[in-house]
Amino acid sequence: VKNSKVFIIIGSDSDLPVIKETSQVLNEFAVPFKIFISSAHRSPEKTRNLVNKAIKEEVKVIIAAAGAAAHLAGFIAAYFPLPVIGIPIKTEGLGGLDSLYSMVQMPPGVPEATVAINGAKNAGLLAIEILAVADKKLAEKLKIYKKNLAAVVEKKDKKLQKQGIENYLKK
Amino acid sequence: VKNSKVFIIIGSDSDLPVIKETSQVLNEFAVPFKIFISSAHRSPEKTRNLVNKAIKEEVKVIIAAAGAAAHLAGFIAAYFPLPVIGIPIKTEGLGGLDSLYSMVQMPPGVPEATVAINGAKNAGLLAIEILAVADKKLAEKLKIYKKNLAAVVEKKDKKLQKQGIENYLKK
Amino acid sequence: VKNSKVFIIIGSDSDLPVIKETSQVLNEFAVPFKIFISSAHRSPEKTRNLVNKAIKEEVKVIIAAAGAAAHLAGFIAAYFPLPVIGIPIKTEGLGGLDSLYSMVQMPPGVPEATVAINGAKNAGLLAIEILAVADKKLAEKLKIYKKNLAAVVEKKDKKLQKQGIENYLKK
Amino acid sequence: VKNSKVFIIIGSDSDLPVIKETSQVLNEFAVPFKIFISSAHRSPEKTRNLVNKAIKEEVKVIIAAAGAAAHLAGFIAAYFPLPVIGIPIKTEGLGGLDSLYSMVQMPPGVPEATVAINGAKNAGLLAIEILAVADKKLAEKLKIYKKNLAAVVEKKDKKLQKQGIENYLKK
Amino acid sequence: VKNSKVFIIIGSDSDLPVIKETSQVLNEFAVPFKIFISSAHRSPEKTRNLVNKAIKEEVKVIIAAAGAAAHLAGFIAAYFPLPVIGIPIKTEGLGGLDSLYSMVQMPPGVPEATVAINGAKNAGLLAIEILAVADKKLAEKLKIYKKNLAAVVEKKDKKLQKQGIENYLKK
Amino acid sequence: VKNSKVFIIIGSDSDLPVIKETSQVLNEFAVPFKIFISSAHRSPEKTRNLVNKAIKEEVKVIIAAAGAAAHLAGFIAAYFPLPVIGIPIKTEGLGGLDSLYSMVQMPPGVPEATVAINGAKNAGLLAIEILAVADKKLAEKLKIYKKNLAAVVEKKDKKLQKQGIENYLKK
Amino acid sequence: VKNSKVFIIIGSDSDLPVIKETSQVLNEFAVPFKIFISSAHRSPEKTRNLVNKAIKEEVKVIIAAAGAAAHLAGFIAAYFPLPVIGIPIKTEGLGGLDSLYSMVQMPPGVPEATVAINGAKNAGLLAIEILAVADKKLAEKLKIYKKNLAAVVEKKDKKLQKQGIENYLKK
Amino acid sequence: VKNSKVFIIIGSDSDLPVIKETSQVLNEFAVPFKIFISSAHRSPEKTRNLVNKAIKEEVKVIIAAAGAAAHLAGFIAAYFPLPVIGIPIKTEGLGGLDSLYSMVQMPPGVPEATVAINGAKNAGLLAIEILAVADKKLAEKLKIYKKNLAAVVEKKDKKLQKQGIENYLKK
Repeated sequence: VKNSKVFIIIGSDSDLPVIKETSQVLNEFAVPFKIFISSAHRSPEKTRNLVNKAIKEEVKVIIAAAGAAAHLAGFIAAYFPLPVIGIPIKTEGLGGLDSLYSMVQMPPGVPEATVAINGAKNAGLLAIEILAVADKKLAEKLKIYKKNLAAVVEKKDKKLQKQGIENYLKK
Repeated sequence: VKNSKVFIIIGSDSDLPVIKETSQVLNEFAVPFKIFISSAHRSPEKTRNLVNKAIKEEVKVIIAAAGAAAHLAGFIAAYFPLPVIGIPIKTEGLGGLDSLYSMVQMPPGVPEATVAINGAKNAGLLAIEILAVADKKLAEKLKIYKKNLAAVVEKKDKKLQKQGIENYLKK
Repeated sequence: VKNSKVFIIIGSDSDLPVIKETSQVLNEFAVPFKIFISSAHRSPEKTRNLVNKAIKEEVKVIIAAAGAAAHLAGFIAAYFPLPVIGIPIKTEGLGGLDSLYSMVQMPPGVPEATVAINGAKNAGLLAIEILAVADKKLAEKLKIYKKNLAAVVEKKDKKLQKQGIENYLKK
Repeated sequence: VKNSKVFIIIGSDSDLPVIKETSQVLNEFAVPFKIFISSAHRSPEKTRNLVNKAIKEEVKVIIAAAGAAAHLAGFIAAYFPLPVIGIPIKTEGLGGLDSLYSMVQMPPGVPEATVAINGAKNAGLLAIEILAVADKKLAEKLKIYKKNLAAVVEKKDKKLQKQGIENYLKK
Repeated sequence: VKNSKVFIIIGSDSDLPVIKETSQVLNEFAVPFKIFISSAHRSPEKTRNLVNKAIKEEVKVIIAAAGAAAHLAGFIAAYFPLPVIGIPIKTEGLGGLDSLYSMVQMPPGVPEATVAINGAKNAGLLAIEILAVADKKLAEKLKIYKKNLAAVVEKKDKKLQKQGIENYLKK
Repeated sequence: VKNSKVFIIIGSDSDLPVIKETSQVLNEFAVPFKIFISSAHRSPEKTRNLVNKAIKEEVKVIIAAAGAAAHLAGFIAAYFPLPVIGIPIKTEGLGGLDSLYSMVQMPPGVPEATVAINGAKNAGLLAIEILAVADKKLAEKLKIYKKNLAAVVEKKDKKLQKQGIENYLKK
Repeated sequence: VKNSKVFIIIGSDSDLPVIKETSQVLNEFAVPFKIFISSAHRSPEKTRNLVNKAIKEEVKVIIAAAGAAAHLAGFIAAYFPLPVIGIPIKTEGLGGLDSLYSMVQMPPGVPEATVAINGAKNAGLLAIEILAVADKKLAEKLKIYKKNLAAVVEKKDKKLQKQGIENYLKK
Repeated sequence: VKNSKVFIIIGSDSDLPVIKETSQVLNEFAVPFKIFISSAHRSPEKTRNLVNKAIKEEVKVIIAAAGAAAHLAGFIAAYFPLPVIGIPIKTEGLGGLDSLYSMVQMPPGVPEATVAINGAKNAGLLAIEILAVADKKLAEKLKIYKKNLAAVVEKKDKKLQKQGIENYLKK
C-alpha cells in the first residue's frame, strides 16, 4: 500500500456529499489519500492527533472542509507546516459567507489556501498541482487535464452550433 | 491575592486598546481577572495551556477577543466547559463582519456568547452578570449600575432641555 | 415542583420548532425552565411582566428568540439584571442577518449573549454553562457532555474508515 | 406657547449633530417640536414616560434616531398609536447597516417609517408631509418647498453651463 | 362612493399577492383606497398621470411596491407632496436588499417612508396611522388594534402554557 | 446570409436557459447574432479565437454571460475594442453577488456594460440600443417597443380595475 | 459648433469631481459632449426636458451619475430610446452598494449599462466604444488606446525590473 | 544566479506596497523570485507571455495580486498548470469584497489558492509551504518559523504580565 499524500478532514459527516468530488478527482489522478471526520470544536484532540499522524506519515497536503464558524482548516494550519487547503461549506442562513470569511481571513503567519464555497473539486485539483511541483508525471497529467477541459467545452459548443439553442435545451 | 474569576485572552497586542474597556468595567465591579496575549494560530500550545490553567485555577468565565478569522474564542470553547465570551474585533477591510461571523456561527454543541463588534465593555458586563447568577452582592451592584445608566441619560436630557440643541452642541 | 432556572421567551409561535432544541438540551441536563410567547412590539406589557416574574421567581437566565427587527432580547435585557441570551431567527429575505445584527450590536451598558442564527441548542448549552459556574454537578455533566461530543465524532469516523465514502453515503 | 406636534427622541447625545438637520427643517416649516435624549435600553422607563407624555400632549408624530441595535423607534412604536419615523444612525463597523435592518424590518402589526441612514432632514420632511395631510397651509408650503428644490438645482446647473466644469470645481 | 384616501401603485402584477395584505388591512379599517399597476420605467407617463389624479382627488397617502431597482416610490415622491410609503419587494438573487436600498436611501429633500421587505401589512397600517393623525375615530381604532395584537399573543401563550411545546407543535 | 452583428458567448451550457431571453429579443428585432459556448478559464484559446473571429467578421457588440468568478466578459473586453455587455449569472451560494462584482468592478481603461443579475433580456435590448445609434430603423423600432411596454402595463391595469384584486389573483 | 454626441447628467454638483474623468476621456477622443446638473427627485421636470433635448439634438448616448437611491439613470432610460450608461457614486455609509444595486438591477425592458462604483473614466470609454460601432475613425483610435494601455504597463514594469521594488517605492 | 521558484505578478504598481511583504518573507526563506507588473485587462499579451516565461523557466508557483474585478490570478491559472495564489487587494468602495469574490469563486477545473484581503505575507508563506513539500530544508525552516511565531507571542505576553495593560499601552 502506498502512503497517503493527502489527508481530507471534514468537520461533520454532512459534508461527505460535497467532499466526494475531491475524492473523485484525487482518484482520477491516482493520488493516494485518506478521509477523516473530525471537528475542531467537538473533537479537538482527535483533530490534533490527525495532524500528528499526517506529519508522521509524511502527508504533503491537508484539505479541510467545514461550514459556519469553519475553524477546522485554521486549527490544522496552526500545527501543520505544509499546505492546508480550506473548502468553505455552503450554509443555510448566510449562503457560506460565514464559512468563507472564517477560512480566508487567516492572520499573518498562518496561511490557508481557500477555494470557492463548496469548491471541493478545485480543492482536489489544487492539492494535485501542489504535488505536481515536484512530480513531473503529475505535472504532465495536469497539462493533459487542462487540454481536456478545453476539449469538453469545444464539444459542447460544436453541439450548440449544430443543433441551435432550441434543440440543445430540449434535451 | 484573590483568585481570578475571569481570564481575558487576546490574539494580538493590537487588541489591547479595545480590551481596556473590559478591564475597566471588571475593576469597577471589583471582579479579579487576568489578561493574556495568546493566539489560536500562532501559539496554540500556549492558548491550550492557558485554558488548562483557567480550569485549574477555577476561573469562571473566559473572554476572548480576536479579529478577522477570529478563531480564538472557539478554540478556547473547545476545551473550556464554562462560559466563553467572544469580542469580534473591527477589521479594516470588512469592518469586523469576518470576526463577527467567525465567532457567532459556532456549531451545535460548543456555544460562544458573542457581543457586538468591539463590544469590550459589554463583554465585561456579561461576565459580571454571569458571576452575579450566584453572587447576590454582585447582582445588587448590577441593579445599581442599571439605575445609574438611566441616571446618566436623565442628566444629559436635562442639560439638553435647559440649553437647547444649539448650545449643547457648542460645547 | 422546582423553581425554573431559565425562562425562554419567543416573539411568535412560529419560532417554536426552532426553540424545541433549546428545551431538549435543558431537559437533558435536568435544568427546570418555562417557555412563553410574548412579543416586544405586540405585547410589550406582557413581556415586561414576564421579566418581573422572572426576577421575582429568581430565574437566573432568560433566553429570547426573535426574527427580523428582533428587539425581544434587547427589550428584556433593558430590565433584567442577569444574563440574557439571544437567538437570532433565520429570516426569508435576509437569511437572518437582520435578526443577528439587531441582537448582537447592543449598546455599551446592556449586554446580550448572542448565539448563531437559529442556534437554539447552543443557547440552551450556554444557559447551562452559566448555571454551571456555581453548580459543580452541572459542571461535571458538561465535561461528560463535551467528551460525548468527541465520542460521537469518533464513532462516525470509525464508520467512515470501515465503510469508505461510497458506502457511507449510500445509507 | 404652542403644543409640540412632533417629538424627536434620540438614544444618545452623540446623535445630536445628525438630528440637527431634523430640527432645522421643522423650524423652517414652523412646526413646533421638542427633542429628548432617552435610550430604549439604558432608560426604558424614561422612554416609556416620554411616549405617555406624547400621547397626553397630543403629539402627532415621533421621530426616533438610534444606531447599531437601534431598537429605540421600535420600542416607541410598541406604545405609540400614531406614526413613528426611524432614522438609522451610521455606525463605524457596519456603516449603519445594523441600524437600518434593526429599524426597517419591523414585524407585521407595528410599522415604523424608516428613512435613509443618517437621513435626518428627510425624517423632518416626512413628519411635515404627515402633518400636511390635514393641514392645507402646510401642504401649500410643501409644494413651494418642492419647487424650490428644483430651483436650487436649476441655479447650480446654470452656473455650470456658464463656467464649465473646470471653473466650477476651482471654487 | 367615498373618495379614496390611499392609492396603492405596484410596478408589476407579480406584486399583487404581496399587496393583498395591504388591501386587507385598509378594508379592516374601512379606509377607502384604489390599486393601480404602473411602472416607473415601462409606463412613466401613466405613473405620472396617476400622481396627478391622486393630487386632484385629494388622496392623502400613496403606497408603492416595487422590486429590484425599485424606483417606483421615489418617482412618485418626486411629484407627490404628501407621504409616500415604499414596500421593497423580495427579489430572487439579492433577497430584496436591492429593493430596500433603492427605496430607503432617498436623497435629502424627497423622503420616502420605507417599511420591511414585503412588509405590505405594515405599509397599510402606516397609512392608517398617518390618516389617524387628523381622524380621532381612526386613532381610536388603532388603539383597539394594538390591544388586540397583545390579546392574540396572550391567547397563543395561554395555549402553550396549557398544552406544552410538544402538543402545540403537533397541531 | 447576413453577417452577425452580435456575438453571445457563455461560459457554460448551464447558462443557456438564461441566455434564451437574449436570443429571443434579438430575433424580435431581427438583429443577426450567433451564440457560442467558451470559457475564459477552461478554454482561453477558443475564447480568444472567438474574439478574433468577431473582429474579423465586424461584429459590433459581444454579450458575455458567466457566473461566480465570472471573468469571461472582462477577458473578452481585454481584446475587443467595441462594446462588451456582461450578464452576471445568479449563483447558489451568493445569489449572483460574486458574478456581479466581478463584472461591474472593471479597472479604468477596459469598460464592461453590466446589466442585472440574470438580466438576459436587457443585455439583448442594450445591444439593440447600441446598434440603433447608427441605425434609424432600429431606433424607430425601439420607440415602438417602449410604447408597447407601456401598453402591456396599461392592459394589465385595466384588467385589475375591471376585476379587482381578488378576481385578478384567482386566475 | 458640432452637435453633442453625449450628454452627461449628474444628480448633484458634489458628483462633479468624479465626472471630471468622464469629460477628460471624451475630450481625449474629441467626442463633443455637454454636462448638466439635474436630479430625478428634486428636478424631475428639468431632467425630463433634458431627455427631450437630447432626443431633439440627436444625442447618441446619455451618461448619468448618481449616489444612494441613484434613480437618475433609470429615470432617463424610461424616456430615452438609445444607450444610457450609469455611474454608481460611492456613498459614505454603504460604500456605493446602494447606488450600484439601484442602477444595475433594472427591470426587463429598460436596460441601463452600469459601470464600476465611481467608474467615471470607463463610462466615458464605453460611450466612445458605442459611438465607434458606426465610426471607423473612433474605432481605430480605440485600438491605439488599447495598445497604449499595454505600453504604459510595459513601461512601469521595465522601471520595476531596472530599479527593484525598494527603489521603485522610494519615489 | 539561481532560477526563480516564484513569480509575483501584480496588476498595477499601486499594489507594490502591499506585495512588499510577500517579497520580504520570500527573501527571509531565501526563495528566489521575480516581481512583474502586468494587467489581465490592459496588457493581456504581456501577462500571457509572463506565464509562458514562467513555464519555460520552470517556475513552481505564481502569486498574483489584483483589486476590484481582480481577474489576474484567474487569467494566469487558465494557462499555468502549477499552483496560482491570489491576493485580493483591498478596495475603497467595497473593502476588497469584490476582489475576494472574484478570486475565490473560480469555476471547477481551474483552482486558485486565495489568501486574505491584502494577505501578502501569507501568500509568500503559502508559496514556501508548497515548495517545502519537496524540499526538506525549507520544511525544517518552516517548523522553526512556526516556533518563532509562538515565541514572539510569548514575549509580548511576558511583557504584558510584567507591565500590566496601562503601562503596555503607554509605549
